[in-house]
Amino acid sequence: MSQQTADPELYAEIQDFYARHMHLIDAGQVDAWVETFTEDATISNNVNPHPAHGREQIVGVIRRAQQQLDADGIRHRHWMGMLVVEPTADGTVHARSYAMLLAVRLGEAPVLDRSTRCHDELVRVDGDWQIRSRRVHHDGRP
Amino acid sequence: MSQQTADPELYAEIQDFYARHMHLIDAGQVDAWVETFTEDATISNNVNPHPAHGREQIVGVIRRAQQQLDADGIRHRHWMGMLVVEPTADGTVHARSYAMLLAVRLGEAPVLDRSTRCHDELVRVDGDWQIRSRRVHHDGRP
Amino acid sequence: MSQQTADPELYAEIQDFYARHMHLIDAGQVDAWVETFTEDATISNNVNPHPAHGREQIVGVIRRAQQQLDADGIRHRHWMGMLVVEPTADGTVHARSYAMLLAVRLGEAPVLDRSTRCHDELVRVDGDWQIRSRRVHHDGRP
Repeated sequence: MSQQTADPELYAEIQDFYARHMHLIDAGQVDAWVETFTEDATISNNVNPHPAHGREQIVGVIRRAQQQLDADGIRHRHWMGMLVVEPTADGTVHARSYAMLLAVRLGEAPVLDRSTRCHDELVRVDGDWQIRSRRVHHDGRP
Repeated sequence: MSQQTADPELYAEIQDFYARHMHLIDAGQVDAWVETFTEDATISNNVNPHPAHGREQIVGVIRRAQQQLDADGIRHRHWMGMLVVEPTADGTVHARSYAMLLAVRLGEAPVLDRSTRCHDELVRVDGDWQIRSRRVHHDGRP
Repeated sequence: MSQQTADPELYAEIQDFYARHMHLIDAGQVDAWVETFTEDATISNNVNPHPAHGREQIVGVIRRAQQQLDADGIRHRHWMGMLVVEPTADGTVHARSYAMLLAVRLGEAPVLDRSTRCHDELVRVDGDWQIRSRRVHHDGRP
């Protein structure tokens, strides 16, 4: 097996990126979070047949989801792990990872809500990493 | 969003620090674990109104908790993740992370006991990182 | 406490290795996965008194386990975390980590199946890391 090991500096940088990305969404800072995507970013998954295109659509989807969470009294904690980072010749970085979602209700123990695999394409924009394409596979869903 | 990305070397170093820190506490090596805090360290959280000040108090709290775990036949596994590392001009490092706690009883599947956010201030003492201040927010608690 | 902090580059490299290793096994790519072990690798744990020696035995054990998972309609997601990396003078790397296993059935929420500690000895073979020895301790088992 040829491992095509990522540059260790890049590896740590991408980990740091995802940590900030997850803190923002879990804290409900949607406007700052969506800036971790490119203007024309696409998010798709195996559950919803309609991908979201562009920051406006992405924010719309997320705000509705967060209103539902608020109504239900649930906090989310997104954990990213098992990160594989693959740079390409044109500077795009492919990042494949696992993500799990913990859901916490007031006064209750956390619940393991979801397990996913995530394949992102990241590009540098003005010195910062941004996600141009995200494909999520929800485990346990066809 | 300006990402203020941490130096990748520092990022890996702090990850390594937390891994050792967690192995020590979960293995019950309290005397070695408390040396990952400064002499005058403070730990506070949103559940207990009384912060612990200094190694002696910290050890006291932990020993009582571990005696209870031993009596209950429970082992803990602390996982830190989603680490954001922010160095400051005076050398102090702010580390914000998620932590989750797995509890394992003999013969049973592990249980997701707790989800927290953790904000540590770390300083170098004689070449090693030590925690000077830890603030923990237990999710699902007011 | 002397921390013997691992080289940050090595630390990221070993994280990347484990991510690839876990993706391969969870995707059922057993032939590629077993090449992350040396030809003469040994795997032992505290549950099965019979260690597996060499790639052929290791593959045999894993194929039987995966056939059972397929029959049961279960997907596994292995998460490695809390990684401590300790290089030695002869180039062998000792990697101590936690691993947790999520099990996902179609249409159901993921289940936290297992918590383990893992102690691997890794060596470089033709530029790639390989596991020469793996000792797993299943938490909650004698």
